[in-house]
Amino acid sequence: MTTEAGTWMAAEIAEQPQVLAELAGRAGEFRAVAEQLARSRPRFVLFAARGSSDNAALYGKYLVEVLLGLPAGLVSPSTTTLYGAEPDLKDVALVAVSQSGGSPDLVEVTEQAGKRGAFTVAVTNTPDSPLGAAAQHTLDIGAGVERAVAATKTYSATLLALHLLLAGGGPDVDRIGELAQSCLDENADRIGAVAQRLRFADQVVTTARGYSLATAHEAALKLAETSYLVTRAYSGADLLHGPIAAVGQETAVLAVTGTGPGGAAMAEPLARLAGQGAEVLRVGPRGDAQLRIPDLPEELSPVVEALPLQRLAWALATARGYDPDSPAGLRKVTETR
Amino acid sequence: MTTEAGTWMAAEIAEQPQVLAELAGRAGEFRAVAEQLARSRPRFVLFAARGSSDNAALYGKYLVEVLLGLPAGLVSPSTTTLYGAEPDLKDVALVAVSQSGGSPDLVEVTEQAGKRGAFTVAVTNTPDSPLGAAAQHTLDIGAGVERAVAATKTYSATLLALHLLLAGGGPDVDRIGELAQSCLDENADRIGAVAQRLRFADQVVTTARGYSLATAHEAALKLAETSYLVTRAYSGADLLHGPIAAVGQETAVLAVTGTGPGGAAMAEPLARLAGQGAEVLRVGPRGDAQLRIPDLPEELSPVVEALPLQRLAWALATARGYDPDSPAGLRKVTETR
Repeated sequence: MTTEAGTWMAAEIAEQPQVLAELAGRAGEFRAVAEQLARSRPRFVLFAARGSSDNAALYGKYLVEVLLGLPAGLVSPSTTTLYGAEPDLKDVALVAVSQSGGSPDLVEVTEQAGKRGAFTVAVTNTPDSPLGAAAQHTLDIGAGVERAVAATKTYSATLLALHLLLAGGGPDVDRIGELAQSCLDENADRIGAVAQRLRFADQVVTTARGYSLATAHEAALKLAETSYLVTRAYSGADLLHGPIAAVGQETAVLAVTGTGPGGAAMAEPLARLAGQGAEVLRVGPRGDAQLRIPDLPEELSPVVEALPLQRLAWALATARGYDPDSPAGLRKVTETR
Repeated sequence: MTTEAGTWMAAEIAEQPQVLAELAGRAGEFRAVAEQLARSRPRFVLFAARGSSDNAALYGKYLVEVLLGLPAGLVSPSTTTLYGAEPDLKDVALVAVSQSGGSPDLVEVTEQAGKRGAFTVAVTNTPDSPLGAAAQHTLDIGAGVERAVAATKTYSATLLALHLLLAGGGPDVDRIGELAQSCLDENADRIGAVAQRLRFADQVVTTARGYSLATAHEAALKLAETSYLVTRAYSGADLLHGPIAAVGQETAVLAVTGTGPGGAAMAEPLARLAGQGAEVLRVGPRGDAQLRIPDLPEELSPVVEALPLQRLAWALATARGYDPDSPAGLRKVTETR
């Protein structure tokens, strides 16, 4: 069957309100694993992930450090798979994040972590996968089959799953489907306008601080994957440290700025960027933002922030003549070892 | 005093053989702290850093995971400075890496970590700094004053300092100055040729796996800082996961490939890139590499790999008419909180 360019990606972006609402309805499953995780009394939480899931893990890292008060890190799988490292992982919780559950290096890292004493949990869209089998606990994000190669609904569902596991839900989570839908609706016309402004850009820098840094990284990845733009994501703090030199008048900046401490800390980098004449497009709850996000608690906001940015990546790819459903060179399962 | 464009950066690149030799001669100071670190029996090592030092910390993370057999992570300073996270850091060693020792957020993270039970050590070029005062132990990388804004000798010296602290030196470390000098000499003519090939590039992707991933990140940062190139660094594994789609015939690729497991694992991504018609330039000990690195143990190689790449960034900036000593918008001390 032949479909129009980007049909799958567009459909999967639109499915997210329902996917998120259903996932929020399964909060009990996540609470049960969260209780076992708490009983294992971890001293430290490690995330294992690649690609889009790596960005989800960055979000999870903030949840663990700020809300659980535990240090957290991202595993470099190659220390296990290439160099045979055998760290002692007693008192460690390992959260493996992978939509496909098929990446051999994540499977190996998870299996080895369990053998070395870690509490292991897989957050995946494919519970019946090698990763699901390798982990002691498996949580299904329940996003359904994802046919577009660029991850969209599996990304937002993974973020919500991590929130349910690590932050325990709450009243805004109960209406997350509705919030996601209104965010898509609110931005429907705005996205076209932003895509026009980025139509001929070759270079896009995305930036944020705090929880929303995951959104900046995910937007950069999505734009690179689907529109062949050269993108970089920077923490607003790191941007000040040097790379701001490379942001000139020909570079577009997408800045995610919420109303919490992370958003407030973006004031200085944004002032500097404006002073350099960069084209800065804001994503957030403020009235002057080009893409408008509901004003949510900062630790939940990334679940919804991704949606209009995915749709922007889709719109830009289409405008530039690419098929966002099948970018050249992109494969759904990473078979890296 | 007016100096020719890039005078300081060129001089500081050339100083590295001497800086590294002197630092290797002070291995005893590092051994003493390493022994105290070992006696504190850490279960986990956290690195705190920003910018170039962040890339050095990535190298340190591999040393800890592979050679010390401990899990390791990079701190997100904003979880402490923006969100007031108070993780329990008993049994944790925190290694703060900063050439200036002046970044307020690293100072705060280090101070707080010590209060919460961590063993804290600062690796810095400015021991008499707020960071030096905040840490329980301070190790001086001894690179001397760095006048160019782009870090060069402080980067390689920080890597060697981390190697001395975490991997304990060895026979190749004893002749590191000589190895660094021969690496600069060997590549003197090659660098000009590579700079010519990159002269009109707008987009450069750097890639590696394992220990050398730090080199790929540092090369990307240096090129972005000095030559205003849009650069991205990817693990060879992550590159396969998606971004390889964005590497077209107009993108230059700098691939760092040694002879150990990390280099071997680059075979697949390099074959894929070649198949897509990308311009791939190799950095490593192989005879067909465009920039030639001495064949060192993989865990030491990054100390030397950075040198010809710094020189390349210098040559390219100069060829493109920029002054690598004073890139617009770049400040030496990050004052982010």
